[in-house]
Amino acid sequence: MADPQVVDDLAPMLVRDYRELARRRLDPAVWDFVEGGAGEERTLRANQAAFDRIRLLPRVLVDVSRCNPSVEILKRRWCAPVAVAPMAFHTLVHPDGELATVRAAGDAGLPVVVSTFAGRTLEELSAVARAPLWLQIYCFRDRSVTRRLLERAAEAGIEALMLTVDAPFLGRRIRDLRNDFRLPAGVRPANLPGTELASPMAHSRLALDPTLDWSILSWLRSVSSLPLLIKGILTADDARRAVDHGVDGIVVSNHGGRQLDGAVATLDALPAVAAAVAGTCPILIDGGIRRGTDILAALALGASAVLIGRPVLHALAVNGQSGVHAMLSLLTTDLSDTMALTGHPDLTKIDSSLLAHAPLGTNES
Amino acid sequence: MADPQVVDDLAPMLVRDYRELARRRLDPAVWDFVEGGAGEERTLRANQAAFDRIRLLPRVLVDVSRCNPSVEILKRRWCAPVAVAPMAFHTLVHPDGELATVRAAGDAGLPVVVSTFAGRTLEELSAVARAPLWLQIYCFRDRSVTRRLLERAAEAGIEALMLTVDAPFLGRRIRDLRNDFRLPAGVRPANLPGTELASPMAHSRLALDPTLDWSILSWLRSVSSLPLLIKGILTADDARRAVDHGVDGIVVSNHGGRQLDGAVATLDALPAVAAAVAGTCPILIDGGIRRGTDILAALALGASAVLIGRPVLHALAVNGQSGVHAMLSLLTTDLSDTMALTGHPDLTKIDSSLLAHAPLGTNES
Amino acid sequence: MADPQVVDDLAPMLVRDYRELARRRLDPAVWDFVEGGAGEERTLRANQAAFDRIRLLPRVLVDVSRCNPSVEILKRRWCAPVAVAPMAFHTLVHPDGELATVRAAGDAGLPVVVSTFAGRTLEELSAVARAPLWLQIYCFRDRSVTRRLLERAAEAGIEALMLTVDAPFLGRRIRDLRNDFRLPAGVRPANLPGTELASPMAHSRLALDPTLDWSILSWLRSVSSLPLLIKGILTADDARRAVDHGVDGIVVSNHGGRQLDGAVATLDALPAVAAAVAGTCPILIDGGIRRGTDILAALALGASAVLIGRPVLHALAVNGQSGVHAMLSLLTTDLSDTMALTGHPDLTKIDSSLLAHAPLGTNES
Amino acid sequence: MADPQVVDDLAPMLVRDYRELARRRLDPAVWDFVEGGAGEERTLRANQAAFDRIRLLPRVLVDVSRCNPSVEILKRRWCAPVAVAPMAFHTLVHPDGELATVRAAGDAGLPVVVSTFAGRTLEELSAVARAPLWLQIYCFRDRSVTRRLLERAAEAGIEALMLTVDAPFLGRRIRDLRNDFRLPAGVRPANLPGTELASPMAHSRLALDPTLDWSILSWLRSVSSLPLLIKGILTADDARRAVDHGVDGIVVSNHGGRQLDGAVATLDALPAVAAAVAGTCPILIDGGIRRGTDILAALALGASAVLIGRPVLHALAVNGQSGVHAMLSLLTTDLSDTMALTGHPDLTKIDSSLLAHAPLGTNES
Repeated sequence: MADPQVVDDLAPMLVRDYRELARRRLDPAVWDFVEGGAGEERTLRANQAAFDRIRLLPRVLVDVSRCNPSVEILKRRWCAPVAVAPMAFHTLVHPDGELATVRAAGDAGLPVVVSTFAGRTLEELSAVARAPLWLQIYCFRDRSVTRRLLERAAEAGIEALMLTVDAPFLGRRIRDLRNDFRLPAGVRPANLPGTELASPMAHSRLALDPTLDWSILSWLRSVSSLPLLIKGILTADDARRAVDHGVDGIVVSNHGGRQLDGAVATLDALPAVAAAVAGTCPILIDGGIRRGTDILAALALGASAVLIGRPVLHALAVNGQSGVHAMLSLLTTDLSDTMALTGHPDLTKIDSSLLAHAPLGTNES
Repeated sequence: MADPQVVDDLAPMLVRDYRELARRRLDPAVWDFVEGGAGEERTLRANQAAFDRIRLLPRVLVDVSRCNPSVEILKRRWCAPVAVAPMAFHTLVHPDGELATVRAAGDAGLPVVVSTFAGRTLEELSAVARAPLWLQIYCFRDRSVTRRLLERAAEAGIEALMLTVDAPFLGRRIRDLRNDFRLPAGVRPANLPGTELASPMAHSRLALDPTLDWSILSWLRSVSSLPLLIKGILTADDARRAVDHGVDGIVVSNHGGRQLDGAVATLDALPAVAAAVAGTCPILIDGGIRRGTDILAALALGASAVLIGRPVLHALAVNGQSGVHAMLSLLTTDLSDTMALTGHPDLTKIDSSLLAHAPLGTNES
Repeated sequence: MADPQVVDDLAPMLVRDYRELARRRLDPAVWDFVEGGAGEERTLRANQAAFDRIRLLPRVLVDVSRCNPSVEILKRRWCAPVAVAPMAFHTLVHPDGELATVRAAGDAGLPVVVSTFAGRTLEELSAVARAPLWLQIYCFRDRSVTRRLLERAAEAGIEALMLTVDAPFLGRRIRDLRNDFRLPAGVRPANLPGTELASPMAHSRLALDPTLDWSILSWLRSVSSLPLLIKGILTADDARRAVDHGVDGIVVSNHGGRQLDGAVATLDALPAVAAAVAGTCPILIDGGIRRGTDILAALALGASAVLIGRPVLHALAVNGQSGVHAMLSLLTTDLSDTMALTGHPDLTKIDSSLLAHAPLGTNES
Repeated sequence: MADPQVVDDLAPMLVRDYRELARRRLDPAVWDFVEGGAGEERTLRANQAAFDRIRLLPRVLVDVSRCNPSVEILKRRWCAPVAVAPMAFHTLVHPDGELATVRAAGDAGLPVVVSTFAGRTLEELSAVARAPLWLQIYCFRDRSVTRRLLERAAEAGIEALMLTVDAPFLGRRIRDLRNDFRLPAGVRPANLPGTELASPMAHSRLALDPTLDWSILSWLRSVSSLPLLIKGILTADDARRAVDHGVDGIVVSNHGGRQLDGAVATLDALPAVAAAVAGTCPILIDGGIRRGTDILAALALGASAVLIGRPVLHALAVNGQSGVHAMLSLLTTDLSDTMALTGHPDLTKIDSSLLAHAPLGTNES
């Protein structure tokens, strides 16, 4: 077989393979909602291109018989430095929705960050969770909606909150606009009772709160005692402010290229954020992570762990809970193999010496 | 829908969409006249590529509920830092020509720089203008033609003059040469009575004055008291000389890639010009601006506002006044959304800290 | 003929030509086994791209009538700074296998590094060798297998050992996984009696020893008195350690892109390794070498010689011993011509002054 | 017309247009001989790519009504800083051969460097020359052949000699090898009586002298009193040695990419050569020059003039003497237009301030 891109339907060999398999199965408009980015999708492409430019410097003759990729984040052990990123409505691509995702991630020993717009209830998810469940939150204009969600989260055993701060409204996703995308019947935010979403983008203009500033963190502390991470940081200045406000973690994210088209790639933003944070809290990163080398690159540049997004929905579309579990296993196995092949059995010792300076003008990937 | 480039005829979602819609409607030779650049169109492509390389660093948790993109330029308020660039013969693409453009821009609160080679009279345009009208001028060999035009402009209420200085003659536009392009019957310079244009390039060799030097500015001051901007500056030295000669504004321009093929991209030329001008007069820029992020990038590198050219003709071709108004609304809405998504509700506070240094070798856009 | 890529079946003019000729002859799964790399084959492509970016600065008016490319490596003279890289199972592509390779290389005065997984016995090969034979070794979990192989090597007249250190197990070669590649009947490791390979990758997980560390070098010294080179070094730190452990040579290699996908290109890794080694032992390099200019570039950056891999199997597939000899002649003639055309008749005087700094952003190759 | 690359047979608008027109007319093997480079043609492409990366910084408001591109080189005035590069056998593409070229160049006021392997006699050419004729020379193993040629040159009124120093033999031109290219009957070196060329490459191995060193310059001085330029210099060191040996001029050349594939692009080599020469003798450059901006770029980086090669043969193939004259007129008109559009009416004042630093990663051309 001359072309490694051709995908065997039965046996995905790369995390990326799930993408093509899902594309064939999903309704085109749903596919576009899952896959698309804002504007001309420059940032969407830039996220992956940043990882493609990375070149690693492997060490040799290190005993790599025990490559354990587990890490401790916020006092909990994860089987790998990987969590499922918050994404709306897993029920769009598979009827089990987040229930399948949480089960699969739990089997892999990996946390899930449940979206505010999850299609299944926190209670259902909590009942099947075998690894940490976190909740991603928006602060709605109607603060009482947010407060009720936080109370529900605490009761359901959610372990941490992740506040999305890059969305005063949803970005302009051209594919969805061209498709006039609307949620199919039956797909609805299970944890926001009474909320009717005409369309996600239109709803966001009505419901999300563009007046949010740093004082929101105090308000959140006043209504919830859960650890609080802040998602959507791309600059050193904002990272410093977040640390000054006592956040429990920072997520370097451009919302998967779905908010500001033209925003910097997350990997390119990471070093400055890491320098500003200087180890005072964990840093997570999302956007374009598909391989073990991508995870090591993120760790080498200062991340504690990564969030993986679209591939989860791809695998869920392809084969439900089993698909997600297989994809996560592929990724974590690739990670431990990469640890072995780079001579780094211990993730805590990874630093930027792992990275080669890519020669300028290199575009061969 | 997998490909965001496919354009729905009824609903352009990006400023760029008007291009394809116009291409389908226009006579191929007219399309080439509108769209083409000089020579091999290297500069034409370079202008847009410079904006495509830009990556922004958004700030978060800023109250962006009031993103007002209005600016003050030469003591007048514009609803956005955007004016319509001077382009010849809007009547080539729509019978209403500049009348439609001026009406649409006025509805959007945006100025129009009327070309010396406008297809409609200054008096007609002035009668419908609801925002500043400026006049672009060439200095003809026959200086009395220029003087009469300036007198007419003053009487018609034109608020400023923009002297084009990059055209001792028109550049070699290969498409027009191959097409042997000639203006259709009825398309003529409405404000240059008695002028017959065999073909624009040929006419330019006869009529434009290649002996112009900096003394032309004194002459213009002697025959007009209107504010005077100078268009076509690409170097710090020339910017400094322009400031020393007391110009009221500078336009960083390479004539949309239609004069010197091989000239630097305007965005790449802007920082040196801005450093030389050091805030002593407004700087405008044209060439390849199609998105809110492009405008913010220009402002971050020292521009006060941008000129938008070809998209105006595209939209005019597609749907006359309504088309231009819809396109300008799309652009200014994109700008205010971009202000919100970058956390910059106040344009006056934009500086180069908004820009990420694009990693070398990045060509993913 | 407008396209220099089109290949005449009868007369390859470039080393690269053998690739296409072999592709047409080989079973697709065998082709993939020979040609493929790990993962997405980024490192495979990067190896060649690094050489393609090189630009040389030729000198003129040097007497180049005698360009002798011979070199002395480990006290033996080679007719050119080129040896055949260790590759498993030449018998996969031609029934004569390594016998043909060793004969052809001997006729060209070039050494062969025999793979641990050679398809022909060391005794057979030794009997026909007319230039140095080296043996590539893995250290198996079952150290007695390795010891027996080393004893057999010494008796067969092998002149040096090359320990592969980048393979705690074999990398994930997607093509082979998709093909479910298995060795054809009759293809087996002739020097590992009793070893049955289900599939190479699966076998590697069972047999190779992931616990290896630097102490393996002492063990090897204790069971063999042959000179020992270490293959798979990509960093200055590891090169320094290797020198400290008294190795007789270092091979800068990423296993032809077959182990860690994302590893740095060998040419890009070479300068730092050469600086660390500082001339204390010979440095060899493999990965993407196809031309005389590639060899000179490697020497200019600090290598003493290069290993050539896949082209040997291509030529062997095309025409057996004659094919390999023709390919090696093409390469060494290209080298001596390149010495003449760069004005460097003496390889010992080559240094980095031969290399131009490629202008940034150069991707024209 | 949407694509400026499409060529109208009757009216070339760009120098580059002659290429496609010639390709259609010439025998494919002759086309390959004219067009091809050595090896994989990396240097051939690199030459043009170097010019494509150039971005100019035009000045404005300079009186450009008199842009005279004439220059003085070796005490003679040329109508533009352009000469016809030495190329073998113009008779291959048109029966008039060099006779047509010399007439056309003379009408344009431009010199011709006649190749040692010209298809027409020096006496014929001299009889029709209206601008300087120079002679390119190789030093043959049989030095008497060279001496007779020099005597003949002096008698025929040749004004200068240009010694090619990058050809100890001809480079490996793959297209010619694949075509087994041989000169057609009737095409022969008119100024080397008695010489039979089996094939150019084979002949070069027999006839050219690979022992040449810097002492050849003294020998040439001893047998000819004509000014002597040296062609094929790419490094500062060699430029310095040439100056020390008292040459009358240096030609920065890689033989149009026909000798060492992988040699640096000439434009990239020029700055270091110019710095070393420091104005002590004229510097010429060839390789990839097709536009007025290319000539200005060469001058900005230190050249006194350029040589134009393949386009002369293209135009000759298309339309004989008229074709060459039209092409040269197109080029010199483009040059004077470019002088006007960059604000540089005086070539002697051009320096590197004309050049923008191309932003890294720029590949939009």
